[in-house]
Amino acid sequence: MTLPVLLMLVHDGSSVTAVEERDPALPQVGVLDLGVTRGDGVFESIGVVGGRPQALEAHLARLVRSAELLDLPRPDVDVWRSAILRGIEIAGSEALESELLVKLVLTRGLEGGSAPTGWVHVFDSGDYSGDRAGIAVVTLDRGYRSDVAVTSPWLLQGAKTLSYAVNKAALREAARRGADDVVFVSSDGIVLEGPNSTVIALLDGVYVTTPPSLGVLEGTTQAAFFADAEARGAAVEYRAFTVEELRRASAVWLASSGRQIAPVVSLDGVELSGDPASTSETLKRLLAR
Amino acid sequence: MTLPVLLMLVHDGSSVTAVEERDPALPQVGVLDLGVTRGDGVFESIGVVGGRPQALEAHLARLVRSAELLDLPRPDVDVWRSAILRGIEIAGSEALESELLVKLVLTRGLEGGSAPTGWVHVFDSGDYSGDRAGIAVVTLDRGYRSDVAVTSPWLLQGAKTLSYAVNKAALREAARRGADDVVFVSSDGIVLEGPNSTVIALLDGVYVTTPPSLGVLEGTTQAAFFADAEARGAAVEYRAFTVEELRRASAVWLASSGRQIAPVVSLDGVELSGDPASTSETLKRLLAR
Repeated sequence: MTLPVLLMLVHDGSSVTAVEERDPALPQVGVLDLGVTRGDGVFESIGVVGGRPQALEAHLARLVRSAELLDLPRPDVDVWRSAILRGIEIAGSEALESELLVKLVLTRGLEGGSAPTGWVHVFDSGDYSGDRAGIAVVTLDRGYRSDVAVTSPWLLQGAKTLSYAVNKAALREAARRGADDVVFVSSDGIVLEGPNSTVIALLDGVYVTTPPSLGVLEGTTQAAFFADAEARGAAVEYRAFTVEELRRASAVWLASSGRQIAPVVSLDGVELSGDPASTSETLKRLLAR
Repeated sequence: MTLPVLLMLVHDGSSVTAVEERDPALPQVGVLDLGVTRGDGVFESIGVVGGRPQALEAHLARLVRSAELLDLPRPDVDVWRSAILRGIEIAGSEALESELLVKLVLTRGLEGGSAPTGWVHVFDSGDYSGDRAGIAVVTLDRGYRSDVAVTSPWLLQGAKTLSYAVNKAALREAARRGADDVVFVSSDGIVLEGPNSTVIALLDGVYVTTPPSLGVLEGTTQAAFFADAEARGAAVEYRAFTVEELRRASAVWLASSGRQIAPVVSLDGVELSGDPASTSETLKRLLAR
């Protein structure tokens, strides 16, 4: 067992001066790190299937974009990419036998210091077969209007930050309602995203997702889903759509890096028929990327 | 120099089994701790003046309330209180010579584990004389309606969580606008709170603050300010007030544990006269608590 693997990116100022393998079972983060005292940092989770990191460049680009939204030092994507590949190499045969996740974390570093904290953590992703078979979802108000990314950039919508307490609270609320996951809705009734996923709805034969201009994350797995759909001649569209449209969709999926796609089989307690055959075929192609 | 002092509250399940003094310069938090990977935890900052922790019981009560809003194990206030007092005792003469801050942190602990992570960190609070002389403040839209604490408890308004990336981003936005601090305003125009403070406005001779029912934190320093004002025969009121009322206030303060009260000398670039003599007298009494 070589997993989990932890590589710390040792910074001097904004530059990485060393990438050190460390024991993830030992404490590695200081109590003054703004990542833990303020959730002040960004992250990415990359799926690894058959030893291949999926959508690697899209994840690196999103890490850079998130860092920019938080005024963090710009991550050197070459350094991060090579740490990711080294982590998967250390995992060795385990990377070929299991699905893995690679988590990238970049915090503002120690309070009063001048360097960010960064690491790459590679671990077994666990079993997604339940979610891939179907999930029950509830819609929850995200509280924000759909235009806040434009009017109020300090709300950091569109950045994948470490401040995910609300996302976790929403998932606990879903569990209280007997559901597995959440679709966030804006205060003006527009479908946004899941706490850890992108929403894709099949509306009148077109695969639709919310545009990132509304402050949702650019979905790396949703982008692969769209590319796959277009390759098969299907129509795809980025547009704002309402929760009423979502309820009438012929199929709905939540897309994310680890579980790939999870078909929504019930929405706010109402059964959705979906398209199990197409889900199963798409999942195979996404895993084979 | 004994400061800073770090006491880790070692948990077995939800119970604290030991309080251990540790070196705050060494890493103490795991990379799987949900405090750092998800900002999933709560905190408090307690001012210590002349060796006396201020509003200790109010801070402990708020820690319990925040933990409850996040479905964290209920903190044992007796254990936390005794760790706080022990930390101040270790600080010794430094606690008498300088103002200190005691930071309490409680996270959901290691992902997949069963115990929270907790610590008490005692350190020199630094110099607040600048802020106490006067701060320039800008109003920023918090994005939420003033009723979200009631309609959408999963947004965790009213909990002092570790997910403060938005609060930090708002302060950077203030700096870009040449200001020192922020007053958050709801999307329906109600004054909420600062990123780390409670707003107090003197409106028609009455000291007014936003009621916690609107999802703002219960201010421990604001409560002491109100108690002091009432003791002097002044009128105080908890009520929703608009940003237009704030602009007409005869004086505005931001109240928080470390700096006590900071008088607002300009709001969105417009000078506020305030009441320097009364600020100075109130500050003295707050420090003498």
